[in-house]
Parts: sequence; structure tokens; C-alpha cells
Amino acid sequence: MPTAILPMDAAPVGAIARLMHELGKLPGIGPKSAERLTHYLLASDVEQVHALADALHAIKDKVHPCRQCFNLTEGDLCKLCADPRRDASTLCVVEQPRDLASIERAGSFRGLYHVLGGRLAPLENVGPENLTIDALLRRVHQGGVKEVIMATNPTLEGDGTALYLSNLLADSGVKITRLARGVPSGSVLEFANNQMLADALEGRRAF
Amino acid sequence: MPTAILPMDAAPVGAIARLMHELGKLPGIGPKSAERLTHYLLASDVEQVHALADALHAIKDKVHPCRQCFNLTEGDLCKLCADPRRDASTLCVVEQPRDLASIERAGSFRGLYHVLGGRLAPLENVGPENLTIDALLRRVHQGGVKEVIMATNPTLEGDGTALYLSNLLADSGVKITRLARGVPSGSVLEFANNQMLADALEGRRAF
Repeated sequence: MPTAILPMDAAPVGAIARLMHELGKLPGIGPKSAERLTHYLLASDVEQVHALADALHAIKDKVHPCRQCFNLTEGDLCKLCADPRRDASTLCVVEQPRDLASIERAGSFRGLYHVLGGRLAPLENVGPENLTIDALLRRVHQGGVKEVIMATNPTLEGDGTALYLSNLLADSGVKITRLARGVPSGSVLEFANNQMLADALEGRRAF
Repeated sequence: MPTAILPMDAAPVGAIARLMHELGKLPGIGPKSAERLTHYLLASDVEQVHALADALHAIKDKVHPCRQCFNLTEGDLCKLCADPRRDASTLCVVEQPRDLASIERAGSFRGLYHVLGGRLAPLENVGPENLTIDALLRRVHQGGVKEVIMATNPTLEGDGTALYLSNLLADSGVKITRLARGVPSGSVLEFANNQMLADALEGRRAF
């Protein structure tokens, strides 16, 4: 009976094993995918592999938060904050840059954003001082803002964060709104959960 | 009606868009996965991202084919060729290093390998001169080899390559074999295709 051989032995090379290991840390990439990607990269042009490596270095070397909205940018202000065609009187408050990216992709919002950098999570020791809440209050109190849309995630912590912010902004004279809740477009009711249906009924609108 | 906004605008940053683009070139990683991975990497420690980038550089800078078997290695000989416990009288001929890795992982083969670097594919202009066939013939004719196992892929081109090699080696006095074909262990016959079943019947063995 032969001894089982570890994958390390199969690719008995430090550099190869190291790349598999690093790729395997990425979300959604298991050991099999990491091995497949590594063999793909081993067979790729040196230019393609170096371009990927350089792009990885660049996001850490060049990208930082926008001075105004904390979106990720290479400049001082992000492309959205620097765009005079955007409506500066409406701020959409999101947890993370990826939420901003999702809303931008939907293409119907023309205002500006404010990226909190997370949500209040007392159990994980994330308090108001860990988010960009002070900067948001300053933006609102500087004037020019008419509406703040809470677009935190529809979760317990996201809702809690939105509630906390709406209390802070209650006497600012600015309109505070939040994203509508209901059944997701394109889905079927059969698969909607109780909360989705309760939200959809509660928020029903006249035809 | 608002104009649709491209994802580029959503993450309006050269470095970010470039990483998404490079990740999106990898097999099995579509635009959605590339975006998710990019946001994960943006939120990761700088050390983790640099480790991945360095590992990418390293596979191109340090890894090259083994002098003897053409497996990938950082040394002159690969770990398998350099291991005196391996049986040098049995050569297993595979198309690619990843095939070698698969067989090693199975853990039952104790001989050495020969990596062809592909298979004969006249339609893609891959001829015998593009593979490591001359080196294989030299290894066999140097003596010491008793058996050559053809472990090319069970495809038209893999089979064609094995047939071509077995003709070249016919008068070398070395035993030429190929991997058994049949139904894959752990599968159910219901999903086996006609060729698998035909191979399994043709190669049936006494209990």
C-alpha cells in the first residue's frame, strides 16, 4: 500500500506551492481552483502574469479613500465627487465602496455618496468612532445637502447604523430617507422569505 | 431615463479597473468574481496582497522545466527525478505538469515521469518537434528503462500522440503500456457515456 502523497509533492516547487497557497486564501477559490489557476498562470505569457502582479501592487500603492466621500480613488477627490454634473444636494450613505459600485451600476442615482467604512457592530467592537460618521455630519452641517438616503445593508446591523445616523441628523433640517424594501424585481413570490413579503405588503403603493 | 453607467464609472479608478481586468482574464473568473475578488483584496492587508503579487512574479522568475523529465522545478532536476527512492525503470508519459500532479496525488505510482509539453495536434500546428519527444527517445535509448506507460489524455489527440510514440518506441525492446479505461470509480453507471461503457466492457477482468 503506497503512502498517500500530498499535493506539495506533486508540484515539488516552492514558488508553485506558494502561489497555490496565496490564491487559495481568496474567497471562493478552493484548493482545486488554486491549482488550476496556478497551472494556467504557469502556462501563460510572462507579460500577463507580471501585469496581474503589478495590478495587485498598484491597488495597495495608489488607491486610498476620497477626501470627501471615502470612496476609493487614486486622486484627492474620487471621480464622482469631482464630477460637477452630480447632484451635490443628495447624499447616499453606504457601508462599503462595493455597495457604491453596485448602486452606480444600477445607473439611476445622480447624487453623491458617503462611504461609512462599515456598520456599527458592538459585538465586533465597531463603534461610531471607527466609521466616517464625523465626516458625514460635517458634510451635512456645511450646508447644501437637502436629502440623505440611508443605503446601508438591510440587515440588523445595517438598519441599526441607519437608525443611529438618522437620530444624529434629526435636527439638521435635512430630509432623511432609506431605500425601499419589498420583493426583489425579477424574482418569484414562491421564493421570497417572510420578511421580504412583510416589507412588500407594508410598503404597498397605489397603482 | 438615466443613461446606463458602466462598471468603470462605479469604480472610477485606474488601478482598481486594471486589477478587475487582469483577474477577469483568468479561467473561471467572470466579471462578477473579478469585482468581488478586487474588493476583497482592496480590504485585505497590504502584506497579503504583496505576497500574492510576489508569488506571481516568482513562478515566472524561478520556475523552469526539469532537465530530465520537463516537470516544472526551481532546481536543475525536479524533486521526483532527484529522489533515489523513485523507480527509474518505469517512465510515465504525460502531456502537462498538471497531469503529473494529478497522478502524484493519487499516490500509487512510484516511477519517474516524462512531460511532453502538449499533444500532437496537426490542426494547431503542434508537431513532434514542438514536444519533448526527442528527449524521451534519448532517455529510453540510454538504457535502464523497462516500461513506458502512456498517460496522455483519453482524447482523440492524446490517443494519437500515444500511438505515435508507441510506434517510435516499438523496436526499443521496452514494454509499452497505457492507462486502463473503464467506468470511473465512485460514479454511477447511469451517467457513464457510451465510450466509457464500451471501454469498461472491452477491458473487463475476471473476478
